[in-house]
Amino acid sequence: MSNPGEKRGLTYADSGVSIEEGDRFAASIMRHMRKTHGPRVLANEGGFAGLFRLDFNEQLFKRNFKHPVLVAATDGVGTKIKLGIEVDMYEPLGVDLVAMSVNDLVVQGADPLFFLDYIAAHKVEPAVLERVIRGISQACQVCGCALLGGETAELNDLYAPGDIDLAGFAVGVLELDRAIDTERVEAGDIVIGLESDGVHSNGFSLVRGIMKQAGLDPSKVHDELDTERTFGEVLMTPTRLYAAPITKLLRRYKVKKVISGMAHITGGGLAGNLNRALHDGVDAVIDRGAWAPPPVFAFLQAQGNIDSQEMDRVFNMGIGYALIVRPTFAGSVAKQLQRFGERAKVIGEIQRGTGSVRWS
Amino acid sequence: MSNPGEKRGLTYADSGVSIEEGDRFAASIMRHMRKTHGPRVLANEGGFAGLFRLDFNEQLFKRNFKHPVLVAATDGVGTKIKLGIEVDMYEPLGVDLVAMSVNDLVVQGADPLFFLDYIAAHKVEPAVLERVIRGISQACQVCGCALLGGETAELNDLYAPGDIDLAGFAVGVLELDRAIDTERVEAGDIVIGLESDGVHSNGFSLVRGIMKQAGLDPSKVHDELDTERTFGEVLMTPTRLYAAPITKLLRRYKVKKVISGMAHITGGGLAGNLNRALHDGVDAVIDRGAWAPPPVFAFLQAQGNIDSQEMDRVFNMGIGYALIVRPTFAGSVAKQLQRFGERAKVIGEIQRGTGSVRWS
Repeated sequence: MSNPGEKRGLTYADSGVSIEEGDRFAASIMRHMRKTHGPRVLANEGGFAGLFRLDFNEQLFKRNFKHPVLVAATDGVGTKIKLGIEVDMYEPLGVDLVAMSVNDLVVQGADPLFFLDYIAAHKVEPAVLERVIRGISQACQVCGCALLGGETAELNDLYAPGDIDLAGFAVGVLELDRAIDTERVEAGDIVIGLESDGVHSNGFSLVRGIMKQAGLDPSKVHDELDTERTFGEVLMTPTRLYAAPITKLLRRYKVKKVISGMAHITGGGLAGNLNRALHDGVDAVIDRGAWAPPPVFAFLQAQGNIDSQEMDRVFNMGIGYALIVRPTFAGSVAKQLQRFGERAKVIGEIQRGTGSVRWS
Repeated sequence: MSNPGEKRGLTYADSGVSIEEGDRFAASIMRHMRKTHGPRVLANEGGFAGLFRLDFNEQLFKRNFKHPVLVAATDGVGTKIKLGIEVDMYEPLGVDLVAMSVNDLVVQGADPLFFLDYIAAHKVEPAVLERVIRGISQACQVCGCALLGGETAELNDLYAPGDIDLAGFAVGVLELDRAIDTERVEAGDIVIGLESDGVHSNGFSLVRGIMKQAGLDPSKVHDELDTERTFGEVLMTPTRLYAAPITKLLRRYKVKKVISGMAHITGGGLAGNLNRALHDGVDAVIDRGAWAPPPVFAFLQAQGNIDSQEMDRVFNMGIGYALIVRPTFAGSVAKQLQRFGERAKVIGEIQRGTGSVRWS
């Protein structure tokens, strides 16, 4: 059951997949992986692990990294998987998987290097799993991250027919001198929020609870949400790959310490994640009027009769990523992020406090 | 649901775990993680990702790594999980999880650096999951590998009550000039096998099938297997952490290219893994008489009436790791591995061939 490198660890004979089908699947995985491989990925066909060169002695690497620190994160996509299976949308799950880990890496100030996936299924259905891997590969390409390996496990007595689970692992590199340090956050710093694309991949236990209770059909179009996409499609919108614009931004500020903190807004919401970027002497004071949450949140809240505090605790409520920046640079940081395609807004400021997020 | 660094991403309020119990769980995880942390792990309490310093500019690192390559592997432990749950043995699953990935790393010649885990459960039961993490931490300590982060996901509609799944992810570093290269394998090289401790963590779908069909009770003691341990305990014996002795061995041969190939014997058996260390011009010719498989294999074969080819294809049959070494060094390599506690034996030799494993 071993694998990475370029070989995935499944004996297809065990799984009812024909040898031809298995070979096609393996070839298609390889194709998706190769799309993400730059010259730093070393060929290791049939190897036991994936190999990624650090370019240690190259001038560019030497100049940028005096004290390199590896940064690693792992995450899954939670019960969004169940909805993805129900509405037959697997690519977004792959994108979510990459986003959840890689967005966490860049919060620390890291440059993403590579990603590995673990896919477990009741039964290996190549056509389905290939769609997950396609999503993973596309997201890796967007983030400049090599898909270095992965494991496909067929565990038919652990998963119900049709079910899968996903885990993702991402590694990046960071120059110690440029690491994000919560101690640098100061009163007067500005909070910039990057809008989300919807629910992303947290809170789906609640979403599915609401759908069940209110009898919501994911195949229906609700005009107040989207005039074309179904409710299911709106919900499946993948987590935004903030890693891409944030990496670009960080490369522009190699010398100046413009950014004093960042947060990827996942389970726990804005208050439960942005606080992780604060030390005990400051609060982030957020102006809710600064952005308009996507309509899916009001819709879910109304359908489920959920109180607002619970909504704030479970969902991103429209802000998927936040940056704390020095006031003199707030305008230019926001403008650059907008140029990279983000809906970036000033959403609050840092004041003296006790390490919490408050609403203004 | 995000996490690593030193904070795991679960809101315990959602899970019926009390705040106190949740805090105790978090503290115990942290304790297990810290036991694995050397000075290269940077404190990042509450951070979004784990940080591992590369010691880039230290003399020792500089001397050893001119062209460093990161090596990464991911794996799970398959349906051994179901047996572990049934017989209430969770620590060995943690050890297996680390072994599966870290043993793959050292096959490439890498020095293990750090490990991350993903644990998904129907319900977070701190007492149970702590035992998994204890096993992970212990195995990481043996391999000199930092447990840098992890994710605990409660997915109650994906897993049946009591069920869990595990995925592990390991990263190591390798000097490119010392990378294992299948092209170096030559006719005349000697194959050294390291004995396994039993089934390890592959083939448990078959094991459980045999147990069910033959009505085998895991709580029974079979004298032919072990006069003290139950059948379940014998089966749950964790995968040997070959990474530890192999890392020590590799450090002794930094200059001389003594080892031309290695293989971690997992699903696919000796023939299906050792072949990955061969190029197309050589065969590994193995003498089955060179070692005695642990009695559990004959027992399973008899109980399930399994044919020998199937046994060879599914199980390690007593050899869990294999090295291909230059003939002049075979004796000293075997002796060193024995000194490190391995049952190391010459089990075959390399001959001209077509890239396969044959029996002599």
